[in-house]
Amino acid sequence: MLNFRLIDPLIELALVEDVGSGDITTESTISKFQAARGTIVVHNSGVIAGLPIAERVFGKIDPSLKFESFVSDGYFVQETAPIASVTGTTSSILTSERIALNFLQRLSGTATLTAEFVAATAEYPVKILDTRKTTAGWRTIQKYAVQVGGGHNHRFGLYDGILIKDNHIIAAGGVARAVEQARIIAPHTSRIEIEVETLDQVQEALQAQADILLFDNMPVGIMKAAVELVNGRAITEASGGITLEKVEAVAASGVDLISVGALTHSAVPLDMSLDLEIC
Amino acid sequence: MLNFRLIDPLIELALVEDVGSGDITTESTISKFQAARGTIVVHNSGVIAGLPIAERVFGKIDPSLKFESFVSDGYFVQETAPIASVTGTTSSILTSERIALNFLQRLSGTATLTAEFVAATAEYPVKILDTRKTTAGWRTIQKYAVQVGGGHNHRFGLYDGILIKDNHIIAAGGVARAVEQARIIAPHTSRIEIEVETLDQVQEALQAQADILLFDNMPVGIMKAAVELVNGRAITEASGGITLEKVEAVAASGVDLISVGALTHSAVPLDMSLDLEIC
Amino acid sequence: MLNFRLIDPLIELALVEDVGSGDITTESTISKFQAARGTIVVHNSGVIAGLPIAERVFGKIDPSLKFESFVSDGYFVQETAPIASVTGTTSSILTSERIALNFLQRLSGTATLTAEFVAATAEYPVKILDTRKTTAGWRTIQKYAVQVGGGHNHRFGLYDGILIKDNHIIAAGGVARAVEQARIIAPHTSRIEIEVETLDQVQEALQAQADILLFDNMPVGIMKAAVELVNGRAITEASGGITLEKVEAVAASGVDLISVGALTHSAVPLDMSLDLEIC
Amino acid sequence: MLNFRLIDPLIELALVEDVGSGDITTESTISKFQAARGTIVVHNSGVIAGLPIAERVFGKIDPSLKFESFVSDGYFVQETAPIASVTGTTSSILTSERIALNFLQRLSGTATLTAEFVAATAEYPVKILDTRKTTAGWRTIQKYAVQVGGGHNHRFGLYDGILIKDNHIIAAGGVARAVEQARIIAPHTSRIEIEVETLDQVQEALQAQADILLFDNMPVGIMKAAVELVNGRAITEASGGITLEKVEAVAASGVDLISVGALTHSAVPLDMSLDLEIC
Amino acid sequence: MLNFRLIDPLIELALVEDVGSGDITTESTISKFQAARGTIVVHNSGVIAGLPIAERVFGKIDPSLKFESFVSDGYFVQETAPIASVTGTTSSILTSERIALNFLQRLSGTATLTAEFVAATAEYPVKILDTRKTTAGWRTIQKYAVQVGGGHNHRFGLYDGILIKDNHIIAAGGVARAVEQARIIAPHTSRIEIEVETLDQVQEALQAQADILLFDNMPVGIMKAAVELVNGRAITEASGGITLEKVEAVAASGVDLISVGALTHSAVPLDMSLDLEIC
Amino acid sequence: MLNFRLIDPLIELALVEDVGSGDITTESTISKFQAARGTIVVHNSGVIAGLPIAERVFGKIDPSLKFESFVSDGYFVQETAPIASVTGTTSSILTSERIALNFLQRLSGTATLTAEFVAATAEYPVKILDTRKTTAGWRTIQKYAVQVGGGHNHRFGLYDGILIKDNHIIAAGGVARAVEQARIIAPHTSRIEIEVETLDQVQEALQAQADILLFDNMPVGIMKAAVELVNGRAITEASGGITLEKVEAVAASGVDLISVGALTHSAVPLDMSLDLEIC
Repeated sequence: MLNFRLIDPLIELALVEDVGSGDITTESTISKFQAARGTIVVHNSGVIAGLPIAERVFGKIDPSLKFESFVSDGYFVQETAPIASVTGTTSSILTSERIALNFLQRLSGTATLTAEFVAATAEYPVKILDTRKTTAGWRTIQKYAVQVGGGHNHRFGLYDGILIKDNHIIAAGGVARAVEQARIIAPHTSRIEIEVETLDQVQEALQAQADILLFDNMPVGIMKAAVELVNGRAITEASGGITLEKVEAVAASGVDLISVGALTHSAVPLDMSLDLEIC
Repeated sequence: MLNFRLIDPLIELALVEDVGSGDITTESTISKFQAARGTIVVHNSGVIAGLPIAERVFGKIDPSLKFESFVSDGYFVQETAPIASVTGTTSSILTSERIALNFLQRLSGTATLTAEFVAATAEYPVKILDTRKTTAGWRTIQKYAVQVGGGHNHRFGLYDGILIKDNHIIAAGGVARAVEQARIIAPHTSRIEIEVETLDQVQEALQAQADILLFDNMPVGIMKAAVELVNGRAITEASGGITLEKVEAVAASGVDLISVGALTHSAVPLDMSLDLEIC
Repeated sequence: MLNFRLIDPLIELALVEDVGSGDITTESTISKFQAARGTIVVHNSGVIAGLPIAERVFGKIDPSLKFESFVSDGYFVQETAPIASVTGTTSSILTSERIALNFLQRLSGTATLTAEFVAATAEYPVKILDTRKTTAGWRTIQKYAVQVGGGHNHRFGLYDGILIKDNHIIAAGGVARAVEQARIIAPHTSRIEIEVETLDQVQEALQAQADILLFDNMPVGIMKAAVELVNGRAITEASGGITLEKVEAVAASGVDLISVGALTHSAVPLDMSLDLEIC
Repeated sequence: MLNFRLIDPLIELALVEDVGSGDITTESTISKFQAARGTIVVHNSGVIAGLPIAERVFGKIDPSLKFESFVSDGYFVQETAPIASVTGTTSSILTSERIALNFLQRLSGTATLTAEFVAATAEYPVKILDTRKTTAGWRTIQKYAVQVGGGHNHRFGLYDGILIKDNHIIAAGGVARAVEQARIIAPHTSRIEIEVETLDQVQEALQAQADILLFDNMPVGIMKAAVELVNGRAITEASGGITLEKVEAVAASGVDLISVGALTHSAVPLDMSLDLEIC
Repeated sequence: MLNFRLIDPLIELALVEDVGSGDITTESTISKFQAARGTIVVHNSGVIAGLPIAERVFGKIDPSLKFESFVSDGYFVQETAPIASVTGTTSSILTSERIALNFLQRLSGTATLTAEFVAATAEYPVKILDTRKTTAGWRTIQKYAVQVGGGHNHRFGLYDGILIKDNHIIAAGGVARAVEQARIIAPHTSRIEIEVETLDQVQEALQAQADILLFDNMPVGIMKAAVELVNGRAITEASGGITLEKVEAVAASGVDLISVGALTHSAVPLDMSLDLEIC
Repeated sequence: MLNFRLIDPLIELALVEDVGSGDITTESTISKFQAARGTIVVHNSGVIAGLPIAERVFGKIDPSLKFESFVSDGYFVQETAPIASVTGTTSSILTSERIALNFLQRLSGTATLTAEFVAATAEYPVKILDTRKTTAGWRTIQKYAVQVGGGHNHRFGLYDGILIKDNHIIAAGGVARAVEQARIIAPHTSRIEIEVETLDQVQEALQAQADILLFDNMPVGIMKAAVELVNGRAITEASGGITLEKVEAVAASGVDLISVGALTHSAVPLDMSLDLEIC
């Protein structure tokens, strides 16, 4: 599920920027023959995501490091749980520590936040989706973390899905024209999704036979009316400023999908550290 | 100050992951001959950082786009202020929009948070520093955003500064041995910094003639005693769980430097959007 | 429409493999101060495609070469027509000649063949599509040449469209299961296309509410019946061994789309040469 | 014989353009735990070339796939022969299928066509050569396929052989001047080959002591006279519009070498498919 | 100690420039099934450096080659000593031979020259350092060779150490201003080193509290006075035109460090060859 | 003549290793608004080579720097001559200084040494050639410097010329077999060169109709006899331990070519510096 062809370039950037020509602290204080075991411990409860990426980081610094995980991505762990260990040369472990934790903490933060949104809407037949508000270079792994947390992915990028947003509507000259234009030119394998803000636009989009309607920043009351208006003739998606506090109300409106930018732009890293034990 | 040799690979990753083989929405809804002006507007007050990177993104998508900024990086702007505009082919503007905003919002978030820490400690002769808890691939630009917000940079990576942390002390067999070892082997151009947690360790580090002491997660009361104990014989730095609420108290302890991981791992993106106007 | 970010790596491969450490013939026979004009002449009638790529090749060998085209991509030209000229240092022109022609001839071959398929089906409301049977490294430009010739593009790759083929059906355990599985997991922005070979499979796919049916290697008689059976409930596509001879009959069956592998795997390069004139 | 350092970049381009961010059909229809065996079957008789490249493709998609070939490159196989199998995860096999076949079919097409030219001239002491009319990015593997089919390679590129063509002669100011110029400046390790079109040019080239004469688009009768005129004083090569129909007559003229552009620009891919069997 | 992430790109450049599309001599004269053993023999006494790099080169050409070294980097060997052998396919050995020897001879040349400088100053508590006068692309491995020869490394590059040179002093407006400026802005983890040429500048630098003084091209007599003037208040380094003849006198002046550009810009390669024996 | 496609990767390596994340000395001591002029001055007489490369380096660090050269590559300059200037931001000039000088000094060293060899043999109709004993990554520019100094280039690498050396002869089973083997398999565009050490081998190589004989480490007396024995039937080349002292005697033996490894492995860099003047 994790395609390292897309992830390795980011790991390489991380190694270049952090290690560069060498870890002068470790090289000057620790014998290169000393061995140790590092245990990664979680200091807050949450959903773990990114263990294969942490393992990849350790392996790129030193292929002889042995990485063992005690849980898998997707597990919910409690505070102070050890989740993985890495054994081998002390200096290699210490050089890798921060880069590996930086990935693991951020991705687990996203998985944890996603799981909270999923839990908050568990009683409704709705899917929680991510958006394109990802961190540059991190899209593959942030979308993976969303899956790990129980969410679903929206289109991967601009190339694999049609989503006509407010600015496209302005440029195309209206909802109907945008949808019609798209139907003629867009690949026949793509559904046509369009952002609508008012019930009039919903009506117009339905008449133009859009396949998916995105309700952007719509008050919950209006959204409910919109879902009724659609009445199964299109897939419906809510988006825009969705918080944990109000997501249940949004789900109750009857939409099929809820997309949440915060999953990837505002998740707080899960607190973790690596505890070292000399062998 | 911004070295694009280090930043371009990240921008390339962002273009590959978002645009890939093409923006099928824009291509199928908007005439490629239409021109427009997009204005970037801020929806929360904060310090702007990343305008040259946004400009670079637009230029990579379409070198004929004209980018104009109304403020410079480092300006504090109020809600609803327009900060820049981009003029040219509508389709190029829309394809670039999200990638450019993703950079600009996150970096402005870091600059804004940094400025808040700097303001909170303005009465003390102390510097606010970043840490290595940056986002993979983003170190260069996040450290730049910290500068823009009025902060200073700690070492760039493992290769350009010696910082002996708890795990190094464990591995080296104590504070004194770690410092002595470093003095023999480390480059003569580097000062030796060491993490200490107790007054005993402060004493030991001073005897070993460490150049800089990092007080890690030390209660403010102890930190004050530590600063007195050091009495100018070393540079002092506070770190670990520093929040906006408690940073002033930490500054009041008399340390020379305060390093704050949150600047780069927990800053919330500044809210912005691009408003489109057809020419 | 041509995204050079995707094309440049292929041009680079071509330059490395052909020019490498230098064009020893040109360097040893021609003064580097001599200037010339090369005119690209077509020796067979056909549709031109690839002029911007030829221009890019000349520019990469020597940015001071001046390229001028007398027609645009998509023009139908008659035998012996000059289509473009390049002016500058003789040695740069000769070093670039073969690489530029190799691109231009092959892409014009694809555009020409596409135009022939489009002409043969001009009386029917059907679109001619390409397939994934492209030449490794050439997908972007071959799909562009198909557009230039009046055809449409099928999905770009495995990542941006769902097409359940015979082997997927075997693996998934039948047409119905494959379609249902896809509906649950696939991105909501994608339509679901499935390959069917018999009327029974058509029926099964319709019941499973597939969005698009691909009639693979179906005799024209059966195909006609299949189109009637579908009766507008799904988009229909014919594929498999479509030749210029039989494409009109296929179009007459009433399908919406016809995809033709030969456009990219068996088009013969259009015959061209570069005539040199010393300035 | 196959240098993957030169081939891997092309395979990477193929993976990027076809797989990109993932194979959404396979991922959404097939369990990632299912295993299968795919058998590659040939639907036309021909000479196989490219098995190690197909194996490389499968290995890059999924290193755990097991590839086994039943013949080696260079074997002539009859219609419906199975030539190789690949065993492992169904999804990995299906994701790789088209890319692997695209390489195998095209290279086998070139090897098959080469073998036909070699067979047609088997009674003469002549070598069949390729040209620089290769597909961008494919030179290494197309030249390999020519060898596999029993042909020989001309120079690899502009950097490793001197071939003075018509345009060089124009630029240099005549056959004699071109050859003399080349002798002074060209590397002493290279023979000097020159394109000639008339018996006068043959004479001139011989007087200038060219090492190899290329008879370009020369009628067979003239070519015979040219070979007699040369009388062993230079190596002779025929080129230009050589077809299977007329190659024997060309060989009968007594030339040492015949170079055929069609081997790499107009070979039709050998028809193949991958048959899937679930394990 | 050798970070191949930094070295592999240089090895790749070497392979591309030397092997390119193939070793035509070896391919045309030697059976690809023949096996051999090549022994690397030294024809002058010296200190060996670069064996792991030679091994890496052989492995990149052909992973099945077996490399065995009879000494380790840092050994002093006498004339005609065999230092390593490589066993496997003859053709792979011969293709690799020159590239491997080019690395090994140059690095051993640097290690040998370094060892001579170290020996010449063995009676003094002084370190021999390298400079930034390295060969482009070779910095990592030349600095490694200096370590192997018993020397120490100065800063790796411009990014990891502050060294204010004559041109910086001119630009900053004097010694004192340059040092003060640096103290304010430079990272707190870096010591401040400054180049001084006269006793007045020494005085000025001491008053500005520079951490390290570099005596540039200073006559030994003045240098002795400078060391006395410093009297332990700063680290002292001699540089500029240091030869084997005069290095002992420089060391006797009492400086802490002596940096020698010749180690990396003028070391003569150690004479070696590879003797082949067919198995 | 200088193909930057091959040179830029080396310049990039140099920038990465030297500048990395930034020039902390310059950034911390010099205002980024200050402008200056740097003049490159030569401190020893010699032949200049590498000015376009120095210009390229300055341009990569800062495209706004203005580079002006007072001489061209190939000029012989006297001690203390200014050869070029660079104008622009002081900080950019100082960051580029060492990298630019490192290229310029080494390449001028090679050009100067080549010119000395050419001068020493000026009375003989002989060419001075380089060898493959170049510095990894530097082949293109070192071979260029040899040309600049008046020398000629031997084959560029293993791929573009046949040179059967002692180890190939051992592996092939003798001089005659090696030459015959090569004639059958090698590209028809290549001459066959073989290394011979004795008059018997010369005889054997002539009988096998080798095109070029390389006299390896042959005493001058024997070489003279060898040239007479050859008597124009092959091109002759002397190689092995050729020094400035003995090159004239070698030339007097009558060989056509003399190849000299020292040109690229033992040339001493020409002494230069950059003098700064604030504008």
